[in-house]
Amino acid sequence: MSHLDIRPAVLDDIPAIVALLADDPLGAQRESPDDLTPYTAAFERLAQDPNQIQAVAVREDRVVGTLQLTIVLGLSRRGSTRSIIEGVRVHADERGSGLGTRLIEWAIDESRRQDCQLVQLTSDVSRADAHRFYERLGFTASHVGFKLPL
Amino acid sequence: MSHLDIRPAVLDDIPAIVALLADDPLGAQRESPDDLTPYTAAFERLAQDPNQIQAVAVREDRVVGTLQLTIVLGLSRRGSTRSIIEGVRVHADERGSGLGTRLIEWAIDESRRQDCQLVQLTSDVSRADAHRFYERLGFTASHVGFKLPL
Repeated sequence: MSHLDIRPAVLDDIPAIVALLADDPLGAQRESPDDLTPYTAAFERLAQDPNQIQAVAVREDRVVGTLQLTIVLGLSRRGSTRSIIEGVRVHADERGSGLGTRLIEWAIDESRRQDCQLVQLTSDVSRADAHRFYERLGFTASHVGFKLPL
Repeated sequence: MSHLDIRPAVLDDIPAIVALLADDPLGAQRESPDDLTPYTAAFERLAQDPNQIQAVAVREDRVVGTLQLTIVLGLSRRGSTRSIIEGVRVHADERGSGLGTRLIEWAIDESRRQDCQLVQLTSDVSRADAHRFYERLGFTASHVGFKLPL
């Protein structure tokens, strides 16, 4: 396969990122790819935060994957820094190509570079394939993830 | 019971916060209350991040509870901002007093004030009492939480 580049997103990537977020059984219900305004506004704030990276995977000038990596300083575990991965998406054309692995490995490498001692993420209980994927990459399903919509 | 104040932590609160983090079945194995250096260094960085609040609950000038609240901007869910609660601890003398509820309600109120649309947290699978506590407060155990130590 042709060369894959993983890099921080820029404003021009937003339509492709939102299309990826929406092309998902859960995302289809909660995204609005026809109205990019809230995404653009959120990206402009996010891009100013040094602890946030919205990453995109690009092949032949086309965004084919994305994830968000957040660096979280903390006191617990002897003042450990941890990273949190959110919103991992791989284009339908690329599924099974190893791109998901490349994205997560990129996030792990970036977390090491930023001196994180722990990488964490949550995955909806319905995503059984994703759970096997994360376990193959060395993650342990040690926690229950709780959410409260406001 | 006497008045309880919940406020952002200051440097002088660090010994009490670390004692709370360590007085816990899981924390006992991973904290070092006899060496505060890594905690002080982490707090000084954390306190400069506008998206981080280390909160303490104080009764009669004594720190009796703590949690960390992180505000995470994002693109998914139409550019939603979410908050993440970590490291919730209540002093042994205060367990059953409703302080845990007060702390989480404080974090929910602060998340609303910062325009978050979602509050999330993870809890070790072994903490069955904590899971019932979060469900009583309206959280849904909708996710599996994965961790990878680096």
